[in-house]
Amino acid sequence: MVKHALSVTRDADFAAWYQAVITEADLAEESGVRGCMVIRPWGYGIWERIQRLLDDRIKATGHENCYFPLFIPLSYFEQEAAHVEGFAKEMAVVTHHRLVADGKGGLVPDPAAKLEEPLVVRPTSETVIGHAFARWVQSWRDLPVLINQWANVVRWEMRTRMFLRTSEFLWQEGHTAHASADEARAETLRMLEVYRSFAEDDLAVPVVAGEKPENERFPGAVETWSIEAMMQDGKALQAGTSHFLGSNFARAQNIRFQNASGELEHAQTTSWGVSTRMIGAVIMVHGDDDGLRVPPKIAPWQVVIMPMLRDVPEDEALVAYCRELQQALAAQTALGEPVRALLDLKPVKAATKRWSWVKKGAPVVIEVGGRDMAAGNVSVIRRDRLYRQDGKLDSVATPRDGLAVGALLEEVQRTLRNEATERLKANIRPVSDFAEVESHFAEGAKAPGWLEVQWARPTGAALDKVVERLKALKLTLRNAPAGQAAADGACIFTGEPAVERVLVGRAY
Amino acid sequence: MVKHALSVTRDADFAAWYQAVITEADLAEESGVRGCMVIRPWGYGIWERIQRLLDDRIKATGHENCYFPLFIPLSYFEQEAAHVEGFAKEMAVVTHHRLVADGKGGLVPDPAAKLEEPLVVRPTSETVIGHAFARWVQSWRDLPVLINQWANVVRWEMRTRMFLRTSEFLWQEGHTAHASADEARAETLRMLEVYRSFAEDDLAVPVVAGEKPENERFPGAVETWSIEAMMQDGKALQAGTSHFLGSNFARAQNIRFQNASGELEHAQTTSWGVSTRMIGAVIMVHGDDDGLRVPPKIAPWQVVIMPMLRDVPEDEALVAYCRELQQALAAQTALGEPVRALLDLKPVKAATKRWSWVKKGAPVVIEVGGRDMAAGNVSVIRRDRLYRQDGKLDSVATPRDGLAVGALLEEVQRTLRNEATERLKANIRPVSDFAEVESHFAEGAKAPGWLEVQWARPTGAALDKVVERLKALKLTLRNAPAGQAAADGACIFTGEPAVERVLVGRAY
Repeated sequence: MVKHALSVTRDADFAAWYQAVITEADLAEESGVRGCMVIRPWGYGIWERIQRLLDDRIKATGHENCYFPLFIPLSYFEQEAAHVEGFAKEMAVVTHHRLVADGKGGLVPDPAAKLEEPLVVRPTSETVIGHAFARWVQSWRDLPVLINQWANVVRWEMRTRMFLRTSEFLWQEGHTAHASADEARAETLRMLEVYRSFAEDDLAVPVVAGEKPENERFPGAVETWSIEAMMQDGKALQAGTSHFLGSNFARAQNIRFQNASGELEHAQTTSWGVSTRMIGAVIMVHGDDDGLRVPPKIAPWQVVIMPMLRDVPEDEALVAYCRELQQALAAQTALGEPVRALLDLKPVKAATKRWSWVKKGAPVVIEVGGRDMAAGNVSVIRRDRLYRQDGKLDSVATPRDGLAVGALLEEVQRTLRNEATERLKANIRPVSDFAEVESHFAEGAKAPGWLEVQWARPTGAALDKVVERLKALKLTLRNAPAGQAAADGACIFTGEPAVERVLVGRAY
Repeated sequence: MVKHALSVTRDADFAAWYQAVITEADLAEESGVRGCMVIRPWGYGIWERIQRLLDDRIKATGHENCYFPLFIPLSYFEQEAAHVEGFAKEMAVVTHHRLVADGKGGLVPDPAAKLEEPLVVRPTSETVIGHAFARWVQSWRDLPVLINQWANVVRWEMRTRMFLRTSEFLWQEGHTAHASADEARAETLRMLEVYRSFAEDDLAVPVVAGEKPENERFPGAVETWSIEAMMQDGKALQAGTSHFLGSNFARAQNIRFQNASGELEHAQTTSWGVSTRMIGAVIMVHGDDDGLRVPPKIAPWQVVIMPMLRDVPEDEALVAYCRELQQALAAQTALGEPVRALLDLKPVKAATKRWSWVKKGAPVVIEVGGRDMAAGNVSVIRRDRLYRQDGKLDSVATPRDGLAVGALLEEVQRTLRNEATERLKANIRPVSDFAEVESHFAEGAKAPGWLEVQWARPTGAALDKVVERLKALKLTLRNAPAGQAAADGACIFTGEPAVERVLVGRAY
């Protein structure tokens, strides 16, 4: 029986395990500010890798980055009824622009510096960006407008969980305006595909891309599409969304253009975003009972080299031996980029240091002791295959010279993706009877996964009824997978002829 | 007489010219939100280049990036008296976390969702990061802590000017904790040097690095150092600051460690930052009457290739001819990175397009017409040397094949830097008499530059008197240059023996 690095296993308590990974891998911590976290260097380093790779994909599809104000006048929100309705309950509101002494040694907002119009801290930027689009767009020649921003946003959450639901979070939000609805819908799906391929190829997180049902739409959207990832407890995590907004925001914000025939038309807009939530997905998809396993493409350090220092004069030669390896590896390429190899010389005990990097999930850890050096070797540990069959740590003595890590890192990336893909496939099951849904989720299985059901895609009150029935089982509608086979059965909720397949499951 | 691209020249109205560059180069625009600007793609692209290059330097000196909350509880500020005193008058305060219908069709902050303790939108993060340091630092082994964050901050400004003074701005803020004052001071100066070399080598903006006088210190700092750049109107722009905070914040926030002898000590901290203000410096140092000139190192596109399209079938061959060039250039290296070459195919008239890129300041613009192609040529325009001696645009026919832009871009970078360096040198003059200061600045010169004076470095009330005398001339103390020759005269303010040289000038 292997003794693992974390004090709690996934199997024993998944929620506690998630929190333990965040703490033990130095990803983030409570900040002392309600609902806001501190993202620590290893967690932020993963976010920087996500930014770099996703930003490249966003730019490669023709989008440019901009920056829009953090504060949005309340009146901007009031212009789109569904939008403000959706966000009003969770908005942080700035009401004063100065503090003043309260006469008791403290400070209070200065009543003389009360804002005439309160400012909302952006929960999302459709409204303020829409105002800019209205200035930028006059003629069909100005279209399409394809922009993106990387920013912090605030949605006041009553119950927060690190990376998954925090009052402030970091994200990118793309916003585009087009001359026709067809073009805007195509953009919506193009960005959904960017998210899908980014999640699968870079994060090694397989997802199901599809359309959200009406009740899960973004406030103000005509269509909302998502990528849904499956966590190891079988729950779904919505990892990115892409919205076709039709002319809803264009009407509210007066984004109009003169078409080629000289007539004024409203533009058709889209928006799409992914956030630091992605890091929560990476943890719950790839983590194990020894901590996080970071896919090499997004690992801030892909290889960590640690000389086993003993505070003796011989340490110097050992460090030099390791430095040569670090330089040799940094000159190599893996997954299309130079290898990111760290030489860790911190004054920490060797075993502590090894397990700290295991918990952080560095893809490859290389330990070097005096005996390794004497034999011209180093000891290589792969984070995706930590133990031998006999339960011992799988540390493999390997000649230092000529050590190539490119293929190894590619294999680790592939292994993580394959594991997750098999898990996703194995845990989506079609059922054709609501009783099966009930019994499946009543069984108390640790990781019940998702069920695929056929339905008549009800709307309005009929949909509300479906949502209520599912809610009683703690289930939600996830999405109707894109590219699915035609429906061929009856709606499991109403018995009517089904029109599509939709996924149901528990979710974060 | 050359007719220039902007409607206003530097000479005619420097402030209006600055605003014209921002508008005509598509750098930024008013957002409709008080004091906040929209940074447009070309302006944001420059900021992304600044981020990339400076971030590399910050990481190369051993710092790691993190992220801390946007909101800071008021009580955190109250712990450091000078700090809160310095910022209280310009803080945006969040008082509510929900909106509710006002019964008249609008929304108001919900009185039932008033925060118990107001939250301040960070104007700077010493306090919230200090709280984290207090958790992270227990023993001397935990030191130094070397971190940085890229973030937005808010300081409520009554009079704003784009890039120079906006209510919200983007910046990086480094925060470090050390075991000794010597080490913390060394860090303060190390980062000052990072800023100096970054400004000079990457932005081509020469600066004077030195210590700010007491009255210009950051609230709560023991020493504040700055880099000061000279704009073309002779005014100073403080382009970056580095603060030695001593144990002021460590005491306020209880950042203590056990030293090697087992005693508890307060840590010594530093902080340092540069912001989107840097873009204002780039505009006012390198801009000319045709718009911006972006130094190649920070140009989002270094070379812009534009086929002169005429909406005819022959366009296709012209585009192919240009695309080959774009690919050839993108495979070259300039200033240590792959060349950033854009093929601009937007459906805009050739002359409009050319002048749009001139105004934006792309370092090299390449136009290609049918005749160029027939001769195997392209027409090359250098933004740093736009006109020939006869006042005509200096567009040079050059063979396309074998065109190498690496050396050319390096030369443009060097030319901009040399021009600015000569201007800086020519406009700092030592004077030894206060009457000379008065007469120099009374003359109404367009670009009076700075004067170097010797002084006794007064403090307290004596310093206040000096500051008042200068203020009457609209002058401020900039900094006491680092590495200066020993003082050898009398203080021009008091006649006492001088202890150092300090720069005075007008400033943004």
